[in-house]
Amino acid sequence: MGSNERLDIPLRESNHPQAYFPEEEKGWHGYIEWEKYPEKQAKAAEILAQYSFLGPPEFQMVPIPDTNPRLEGVRWKQYHAALGSTLKDLPQESWDIVKKEKAEDMIHVLDFPYNGEPPRDRLIETTLTNNEDHFVRNHGGIPIINEDDYFLDIGGLVNKPTRLTMKDLKNEALFPRQTNVVSLQCSGTRRIEQIQQYPGDGDELINAPWGEGAIGTARWTGVSLKKVIKHCGGLKDSAKNIEFMGVDTYFKKGKVYNYVVSVPWRKVRAHEVLLAWEMNGKPLPKIHGYPLRAVVYGYIGARSVKWLSRINAIIEPSEAPVQKKEYLYYSTQVGKHNATYSDGFSIQDMPVSSAIMSPIDKAVIIHDGFITMKGWAYSGGGHWPVRVEVSGDGGSVWYETPFEKLSPKYFYAWRLWSIDLPVDAEGWLELVVRCWDNALNTQPTFVRSAWVDLEEDEEYETQVQRRKGRDPEE
Amino acid sequence: MGSNERLDIPLRESNHPQAYFPEEEKGWHGYIEWEKYPEKQAKAAEILAQYSFLGPPEFQMVPIPDTNPRLEGVRWKQYHAALGSTLKDLPQESWDIVKKEKAEDMIHVLDFPYNGEPPRDRLIETTLTNNEDHFVRNHGGIPIINEDDYFLDIGGLVNKPTRLTMKDLKNEALFPRQTNVVSLQCSGTRRIEQIQQYPGDGDELINAPWGEGAIGTARWTGVSLKKVIKHCGGLKDSAKNIEFMGVDTYFKKGKVYNYVVSVPWRKVRAHEVLLAWEMNGKPLPKIHGYPLRAVVYGYIGARSVKWLSRINAIIEPSEAPVQKKEYLYYSTQVGKHNATYSDGFSIQDMPVSSAIMSPIDKAVIIHDGFITMKGWAYSGGGHWPVRVEVSGDGGSVWYETPFEKLSPKYFYAWRLWSIDLPVDAEGWLELVVRCWDNALNTQPTFVRSAWVDLEEDEEYETQVQRRKGRDPEE
Repeated sequence: MGSNERLDIPLRESNHPQAYFPEEEKGWHGYIEWEKYPEKQAKAAEILAQYSFLGPPEFQMVPIPDTNPRLEGVRWKQYHAALGSTLKDLPQESWDIVKKEKAEDMIHVLDFPYNGEPPRDRLIETTLTNNEDHFVRNHGGIPIINEDDYFLDIGGLVNKPTRLTMKDLKNEALFPRQTNVVSLQCSGTRRIEQIQQYPGDGDELINAPWGEGAIGTARWTGVSLKKVIKHCGGLKDSAKNIEFMGVDTYFKKGKVYNYVVSVPWRKVRAHEVLLAWEMNGKPLPKIHGYPLRAVVYGYIGARSVKWLSRINAIIEPSEAPVQKKEYLYYSTQVGKHNATYSDGFSIQDMPVSSAIMSPIDKAVIIHDGFITMKGWAYSGGGHWPVRVEVSGDGGSVWYETPFEKLSPKYFYAWRLWSIDLPVDAEGWLELVVRCWDNALNTQPTFVRSAWVDLEEDEEYETQVQRRKGRDPEE
Repeated sequence: MGSNERLDIPLRESNHPQAYFPEEEKGWHGYIEWEKYPEKQAKAAEILAQYSFLGPPEFQMVPIPDTNPRLEGVRWKQYHAALGSTLKDLPQESWDIVKKEKAEDMIHVLDFPYNGEPPRDRLIETTLTNNEDHFVRNHGGIPIINEDDYFLDIGGLVNKPTRLTMKDLKNEALFPRQTNVVSLQCSGTRRIEQIQQYPGDGDELINAPWGEGAIGTARWTGVSLKKVIKHCGGLKDSAKNIEFMGVDTYFKKGKVYNYVVSVPWRKVRAHEVLLAWEMNGKPLPKIHGYPLRAVVYGYIGARSVKWLSRINAIIEPSEAPVQKKEYLYYSTQVGKHNATYSDGFSIQDMPVSSAIMSPIDKAVIIHDGFITMKGWAYSGGGHWPVRVEVSGDGGSVWYETPFEKLSPKYFYAWRLWSIDLPVDAEGWLELVVRCWDNALNTQPTFVRSAWVDLEEDEEYETQVQRRKGRDPEE
């Protein structure tokens, strides 16, 4: 079937006669298992291939809308509708959960899959982010799982593959409980500034036009994954990576998957991966992974898989698309037209970063010699902020924020800061911030040299390849 | 006694009648124990106070000499001579060891205490640096210790304070042997560029005008300190830091010490501290710490204490001057006139860094469209280089060095790189390099924003304080 003969775009439900995919487990709503059933994946791909879907929005020449939600994610809704009754209502159900679990004034950067960040002022009011204000970066619909029906399978290259219930995991005779204050950050944080300054640099094809709020900090409680692996008899010698599988359905280039990524075993061995069921002393909200999620300290948020279904010990890093084809980091000579996956490297540890949350861009300020600046600073990968500096002249003269205005140090979390910056100008000021972490790393001077993260270009690339008459999966 | 009445500068030996300090142990030449005997320290300080010593050189207005050795360290020789016969010959003895153990063409950045780096071309010939080419940053004279007379005391907050001989440490029934490829780097690497570009920024008062060679890589063999602490019954609960004491005599502001620093216990717990007796399969050279030294992975070289005499488990980081008053990192608004120790933070993990070793600055190159560039790249603190980029126009257009031209990845070592840079200009080119590590950190754009490390200003500050009529130790 040529592209001109494609079926209409489905908006509410597939009109494909075979589009029915059952849910996998009783009490796990919104969970279709794909990874175990290649024939099911093939059937879904065949159905998807018969539709034309709306392309992703293009923001190289036009600004991102100032609406809330900013973007709708129409094609993702279409994907779900195309696969029939099991998935078609997930966009609406997920939105209902957003309404219930998140603050009313969230900035919804994407309606579906839901992506949102809190208002900038509130994010820096407290060192621990309120659960309803914590940013959300979902890749699919939100599943609803009964805790009593839930179980976690640990398999692959462990000596004793094991199924654990929540009761097992919460049994302190089996696993000591652990609590840590940990920041999670999306590698797309502050992407909107890059888009504004350098449209066309590869990152304008996006689902999530993040501001400075794709970061949050919580006190997570659960068990160290190392203890769980030990309970499973430990690893076989060849195991070097740990794969996490989530319940959510993930679409890429006309195929379906569950959400799957991996982290190196050395990260687990250092007790830096928690299987968490509590967020700031409360049960994990559904939108944050209830009943159980991974929390990987210092890494990109994408590894902290929600709604965990399985954990596998494996040899090489996961071949799953989110691990191998997303969240890649390219050099500045790579753009959307010449990127190949093997040119990028996989983002794991988060670099040192910071943001000014107040004042806002283009604010008119009447001052009497000082301007109060506030914001956050963070460094992942086992490091933490030790010094925050600001400048009122674009980076020539720097002032250190006072030590007593830095929030407490944690090994795996951000620090909030504020300073009364001495100012003698009455005209335009360029306020900038930089953080130094305990390894003496600081931020690159220019946004452009910071990053090119071709996270969300799958549809664009598919279309380019189709135009060239090629199979986009080649 | 006022400063006008001070005794003459001693060049070969003290003329103070009480200047005699015995060596501490049979078979340990060049070892005066100071830390255990405050009265001995007081006596030494009293003797030193009666001399005027030559001030440190000042390179704010004049260039660093192009001699080899670059600098002599006259005042350090004077300090040793002032304390009498036990120490007076150490400068000459140390120099004799340099001649024997180091390559003939080393760049001696300081005669005494010996500091030296290899010629730039040879440093990047091999991923593992030859022992005779490995940089040396000593803080005192080189002791000569018989392995059979050697022992290591482990004390402080361990449950079972223990004395170990080299035989014990080499007993594989007691301690599994460990070998790791680890780079050591002095935080002063490339200081000479900072001095040249920004004289007066606090760092021109120096002992060691390092070029790009204050880094080296070796395969170290020994035992993990964690295993040794375990052998000593483990730590008491309050212990959070591990202090290393070296044999060498260290002078600061008219007082004497042994060389003492500390690292956090978490560093030891991660098996990132080795007690090493082999360097690239050969016994440790005397100049590198024979018979036993610490090797702290990813940290500033200053923590990898040579000629270890004792290891103490302690609560807070060491109060010793090298830990608390040296290797501090200041913001750019702090200079030599307004620095206080509490304004700086202690350098431990090394940041991401890189250097061009070829071509050299101001080279005249006849090219036919390509210039071959070579160098090293490194990141400490548990990270490693993943990408090296170079630019021929001062940092506007960047080229990634080919993956196959990057030397193998180790968790704790540098990577060498090379690239044939496409060049179309026939005039001046500004060649620059930057490294990205696996945490996506890269280097600051300008030297000035990189660091201010007031490592060696003790004499300057002493003189300033004296001029102000203050006790320099206040």
